Amino acid sequence: MRKVFNFNAGPAMLPEEVLLTAQGEMLDWHGCGMSIMELGHRGPEFQQVAAAAEKSLRELMAIPEHYQVLFLPGGATTQFAMVPLNLLARNNKVDYVDTGIWSKKAIAEAERYGQVNIAAKCHHGKEGIVIPSQQEWHLQPDVAYLHYTPNETIEGIEFHFIPETGDVPLVADVSSMILSQPIDVNRFGILYAGAQKNLGQAGVTIVIIRNDLIGEAMPFTPTLYQYKVLSANHSFYNTPPTYSWYLTGLVLDWIKRQGGVETIYAINQRKAKKLYAAIDESNGFYCNNIDPKCRSLTNVVFTLKDDTLQGEFLKQANEAGLVNLRGHKVVGGLRASIYNAMPEQGIDLLVTFMREFTLKY
Amino acid sequence: MRKVFNFNAGPAMLPEEVLLTAQGEMLDWHGCGMSIMELGHRGPEFQQVAAAAEKSLRELMAIPEHYQVLFLPGGATTQFAMVPLNLLARNNKVDYVDTGIWSKKAIAEAERYGQVNIAAKCHHGKEGIVIPSQQEWHLQPDVAYLHYTPNETIEGIEFHFIPETGDVPLVADVSSMILSQPIDVNRFGILYAGAQKNLGQAGVTIVIIRNDLIGEAMPFTPTLYQYKVLSANHSFYNTPPTYSWYLTGLVLDWIKRQGGVETIYAINQRKAKKLYAAIDESNGFYCNNIDPKCRSLTNVVFTLKDDTLQGEFLKQANEAGLVNLRGHKVVGGLRASIYNAMPEQGIDLLVTFMREFTLKY
Repeated sequence: MRKVFNFNAGPAMLPEEVLLTAQGEMLDWHGCGMSIMELGHRGPEFQQVAAAAEKSLRELMAIPEHYQVLFLPGGATTQFAMVPLNLLARNNKVDYVDTGIWSKKAIAEAERYGQVNIAAKCHHGKEGIVIPSQQEWHLQPDVAYLHYTPNETIEGIEFHFIPETGDVPLVADVSSMILSQPIDVNRFGILYAGAQKNLGQAGVTIVIIRNDLIGEAMPFTPTLYQYKVLSANHSFYNTPPTYSWYLTGLVLDWIKRQGGVETIYAINQRKAKKLYAAIDESNGFYCNNIDPKCRSLTNVVFTLKDDTLQGEFLKQANEAGLVNLRGHKVVGGLRASIYNAMPEQGIDLLVTFMREFTLKY
Repeated sequence: MRKVFNFNAGPAMLPEEVLLTAQGEMLDWHGCGMSIMELGHRGPEFQQVAAAAEKSLRELMAIPEHYQVLFLPGGATTQFAMVPLNLLARNNKVDYVDTGIWSKKAIAEAERYGQVNIAAKCHHGKEGIVIPSQQEWHLQPDVAYLHYTPNETIEGIEFHFIPETGDVPLVADVSSMILSQPIDVNRFGILYAGAQKNLGQAGVTIVIIRNDLIGEAMPFTPTLYQYKVLSANHSFYNTPPTYSWYLTGLVLDWIKRQGGVETIYAINQRKAKKLYAAIDESNGFYCNNIDPKCRSLTNVVFTLKDDTLQGEFLKQANEAGLVNLRGHKVVGGLRASIYNAMPEQGIDLLVTFMREFTLKY
């Protein structure tokens, strides 16, 4: 058992089994006498690792054959530019939904390349911050795509529905929710996710893209930002981040051993339910300001009624092995990121700690 | 001692000590109870790792204060676009030297953004392929920069002089030679290097850039390709490839323990001398077609006089634990990449193997 439970939003906790496997194989991958990080990306050993990881992801997410899976360097922020650079070459009108800080970053980058319409924004409803239902959105019929952020890691807001966009391709940044719950890939044109939350370590980003969306990018697009080039070369146009790719493969194998996404989802639902209950049943000692319909499964944000106690809360939590509970600097407060690798035991310890803390103050 | 000596051109062999440290710290970095890959990039632990790696690099290369050091995702290929996108915004005339496949790739990308003049090309001289001396080059006086590739990894060609360009900034792809020999950073505007040869694992690229060259990029440059943004955020605009950065730090510490770049350079010279001697003294059984003045310190290419023996050579070498000696697919033949982490013992074994092989055929 890990002695520390790390609630960081990303890079985040990894399954202990994955770290033990990586540790065991560090100097000698499968008896070849070399570390996987020492091996050429075009050699048979890494080709096997790369293909196996893609196969596992396709299985776990039921990705249809008419979608490409790319393993690209950098994080999801790379996709804030790549998506418009590739999809706005022929039609530069586009819809974005603004639900928080990550949406806004994606929007700011897209505005450099196209005419962005903000189709919807969060607002304060009776029960907290809420994502408006789709009837209230201002969708345009003739846009290149609609982009949204199904889970906002910083604010702890999540869509519990998939927007209906007809023929307009749906593009989603699923960094903080990929493989934490089932996703119907068929509903999307592009899904992308940085690995450092649910898929491994920082330095690799997964892009799942429907074949018909792989076309000519804007003429000034750097070669390494062109989906067409990256896809034609199966993510091997240049040296990919081999070790990060390998580690993602280990995480995917671990998810399979847990029983797949449905099993993980059931555990994640229990974890989130326990933690939100601890907040809601604290008589206002802890507070979450998101409408319960829009609460995040993976990023539970909360504040203390008496915010002068926050430093003490963090200090005592640290001492109890419950670390990195500070909220994002832009929004403040507290945040427990509880991705797949956070054991239910970590939640139980946190909930107990939170209850005991209320008794002291 | 490693049981296998890996002569791959990159990703390449790593020092055993580095792998052992990474292995030992995999689940618990410096007693914090977490892997370095689980830790937030803005937290105190990773900040310490990041700063220490930069400090080590600055020490080892004597990088002056008026240069920034960036740790960016991706490989050197990212810089083929970033350099012109950032440096050609005001003056789009530029000189490139073409000495091989990596030069050509950099040129092809630059031609998308500026007017590229090829200042010089390799040619076949009396003693093999040769880089023309600078008197023969066609330099333009008013260009934004001159780009060259001091060591061509695929062809095994190396500059043993630094071009004189007066006020024109010199930009160099030093991926396959960084820290294998001393470099006078003051002579350069930008030096860049993918990590997977001499600096660690694939997934991080070092850019050393003189402050006055950090300006406005072309208006359509993706945010993550703008040196100004990356530099203002000290490579933390978004999540950097934290584990690759950490591993580079371990490699830099190892170089310091060896005695620094001068010591490593002396070893590398001995290694290269032994291997070229084995080729030159084989009575034509092995052949290297590069003018001895331009031979690479780190990538020793050679062919067999009877190329039908190549398969047998590779097979027997593999059996002897001397692996990945096949040349790049574009040029064929054989190649021994002998970066810093290749022990002299690996060269001795290879040389012995080569001599014994000649006796059999």
